[in-house]
Amino acid sequence: MAEALKPGDARKILLMVLDGMGDRPVKELGSKTPLQYAAKRAMDKFASEGTCGIMDTIGRGIRPGSDTAHLALLGYNPYEVYTGRGPFEALGIGMDVRAGDVAFRCNFATVDTRMVVTDRRAGRIREGTDELGRSLDGMEIDGVKILFKPAVEHRAVLILRGKGLCAKVTDADPHSEGQKVHESNPSVNNNATDFKDAEFTAKVLNKFVLESYKALNAHLVNKERTKNGELPANIILPRGAGMAPHIPKISDRYGMKSSCVAGISLVKGICRYVGMEIPDVKGATGGTDTDLGAKMKAVLRELDKNDFVLLNIKALDIFGHDGDAKGKAAYIGKIDRQLKFLFSNIGENVVVALTADHSTPVSVRDHSGDPVPLAICGPHVRKDVIIKYDEVSCASGALGRIRGMDLLPVMLDLANRSEKYGA
Amino acid sequence: MAEALKPGDARKILLMVLDGMGDRPVKELGSKTPLQYAAKRAMDKFASEGTCGIMDTIGRGIRPGSDTAHLALLGYNPYEVYTGRGPFEALGIGMDVRAGDVAFRCNFATVDTRMVVTDRRAGRIREGTDELGRSLDGMEIDGVKILFKPAVEHRAVLILRGKGLCAKVTDADPHSEGQKVHESNPSVNNNATDFKDAEFTAKVLNKFVLESYKALNAHLVNKERTKNGELPANIILPRGAGMAPHIPKISDRYGMKSSCVAGISLVKGICRYVGMEIPDVKGATGGTDTDLGAKMKAVLRELDKNDFVLLNIKALDIFGHDGDAKGKAAYIGKIDRQLKFLFSNIGENVVVALTADHSTPVSVRDHSGDPVPLAICGPHVRKDVIIKYDEVSCASGALGRIRGMDLLPVMLDLANRSEKYGA
Repeated sequence: MAEALKPGDARKILLMVLDGMGDRPVKELGSKTPLQYAAKRAMDKFASEGTCGIMDTIGRGIRPGSDTAHLALLGYNPYEVYTGRGPFEALGIGMDVRAGDVAFRCNFATVDTRMVVTDRRAGRIREGTDELGRSLDGMEIDGVKILFKPAVEHRAVLILRGKGLCAKVTDADPHSEGQKVHESNPSVNNNATDFKDAEFTAKVLNKFVLESYKALNAHLVNKERTKNGELPANIILPRGAGMAPHIPKISDRYGMKSSCVAGISLVKGICRYVGMEIPDVKGATGGTDTDLGAKMKAVLRELDKNDFVLLNIKALDIFGHDGDAKGKAAYIGKIDRQLKFLFSNIGENVVVALTADHSTPVSVRDHSGDPVPLAICGPHVRKDVIIKYDEVSCASGALGRIRGMDLLPVMLDLANRSEKYGA
Repeated sequence: MAEALKPGDARKILLMVLDGMGDRPVKELGSKTPLQYAAKRAMDKFASEGTCGIMDTIGRGIRPGSDTAHLALLGYNPYEVYTGRGPFEALGIGMDVRAGDVAFRCNFATVDTRMVVTDRRAGRIREGTDELGRSLDGMEIDGVKILFKPAVEHRAVLILRGKGLCAKVTDADPHSEGQKVHESNPSVNNNATDFKDAEFTAKVLNKFVLESYKALNAHLVNKERTKNGELPANIILPRGAGMAPHIPKISDRYGMKSSCVAGISLVKGICRYVGMEIPDVKGATGGTDTDLGAKMKAVLRELDKNDFVLLNIKALDIFGHDGDAKGKAAYIGKIDRQLKFLFSNIGENVVVALTADHSTPVSVRDHSGDPVPLAICGPHVRKDVIIKYDEVSCASGALGRIRGMDLLPVMLDLANRSEKYGA
């Protein structure tokens, strides 16, 4: 089919990430993995037409987060660009993170008048954090802009944006109750080149914590909580400073126009951060109720307009976290029927990979370091003897066992988009 | 057969590089690769008697040049020793390159009297460059020796040899027409430790460019060209300075006497550079007309005299660049018949690898990053279940997927020539 293409022509690239798909054998499924158990004719056909392998998204035996895994799948070395959870949590809740921002994970907490922490989670507050957060977001302290956004329950993210900032500061969060709120300090020696920046950042952070007490302690939401016998969420405790990394954009690095079809904010956030377009897909929720058909149609539309498209489907990870083996297997079947539609409508000029960002075994109910299956199809892609798409069958494929950060280079090469190294 | 050898005795090593052999499926060949399609009983027998794998010469998805690939196959990390194209182009045209030389790729070009470049390729000059080059080669400028050699068409290589040189200088080549010849300058800050060397090198380079104009503008060849209405090749425009790397010799590194049987200058040049002998093999052209029989006999002779022999056969790469699938498959058959001769005449004390430096798929007409097949045979080498020598079959072999720079260490170990790491 691809013979009509001219030799060496650049192909398009589609990277399909079935979040948390990899698994371990489950007794309930006859000691098969959900993937081995599932009805998945389109996936098996895909594997049989291309080249297969297994992949350690980060490294052998390393349990990936969704953030580090997606960085690797986009060709970045997570050990170089992953600067802690702060900036990535911020991306995960849809904040506009910029290179150089210093971001902190935060808790809404309760302190008494001596600034001793009496509850690190403010009675696991669930409601009212949006209003509380609005009273902090947008402040300016010593020329530094404060961006603050609540996340789930008592959690929130703080971003400091401005000149002369540095993430090498200690936590204000004392990490245990009965202690006073800590004063943040530089975590580097005073002869380090970034000591002055760290000192300034700590000063701004300490002022912010104090301001948060002033603003929140007097807040109507907290007066209401106290009246109802609930603990007031009267302070913000930041921890885990991380500076948003300077990452080259996909377009600058590979000369590709790219977009991402995903429901969950973290993946959308990371993709936006590396310069990918994020089309709005109606019905793409990032949950088990997502509109798979709408996402497949979006992928076809995006492939028309871009050189590189990443698709993330989140649901299997959720079944993994829930420990629901049958639900996971059934959902694989549901995805498979949509893939049949996708594969029969995709152009001939696309190199396609089907894989996962990590395993989320139902027997673990969390991410694991088990390698994930991988299959690649496309014009002139080598065809091996593998005819089943699962964690074990793919391991005997012609790709062998690769790392996550090698996948995009391999696909770029198969898409005739690589630079030659040497002559 | 090898049982007569004493345990732990050092073996000899033969590394056979079938240049550009790896490929992708080709419709014309029933969706097989040329290697899968070819009649190659000797290769299959070789694979069935040894251990197989696939190899990324540089790295996964990385498209190798012939220069970087051969450095890796000789056990060097190309990312450490590959210092740009200049020194390797010089090696490729048979110049005597020495560690510390600064080499430039050059064009014969045309300038007007104001030194404005009117044609960067001197009307794509094809003849007379040898005579023109001779008027520049061997000069001395400020104690620096000038070595200059024309290559194909308007191309040439300049080497500066002497003390106090540095490759961190900008190009004299303005890279576009209508501009004046650039003055070369240091490309490092004036507080860098090598600034003085860079300044000196730039000064020598600028003087050379001026001298080239004086010598060439008045040259008889150019007078003749002007008379015939052709553009004079009246200046040399150097670019892409690179310092020839300090590489430990094979003999110093591994204590092996070594030689290389090859037709093409680049491979011969690199092998000479790392201290290998380069025997003159009559009929070894580096083309599709090479005398394969003569090369096989040379390999047998060289194995008698050396510990390590590298054989390069170039032809398959040429068929790949030409997009000639059937020609490539037929030539694999031709090599196979010669390998049958070689294998039946080789001593029992040799560890032999059969592989390629990179893939040159006929559907790409250039090098690609697809891994290459690899098989290793020899006394006491593990035997796996693989019975076919091709890109897909070898991938299931016991060697797995290795890197090019790991091949020589693996062979040294199989040849009982490695140092123990630890006690």
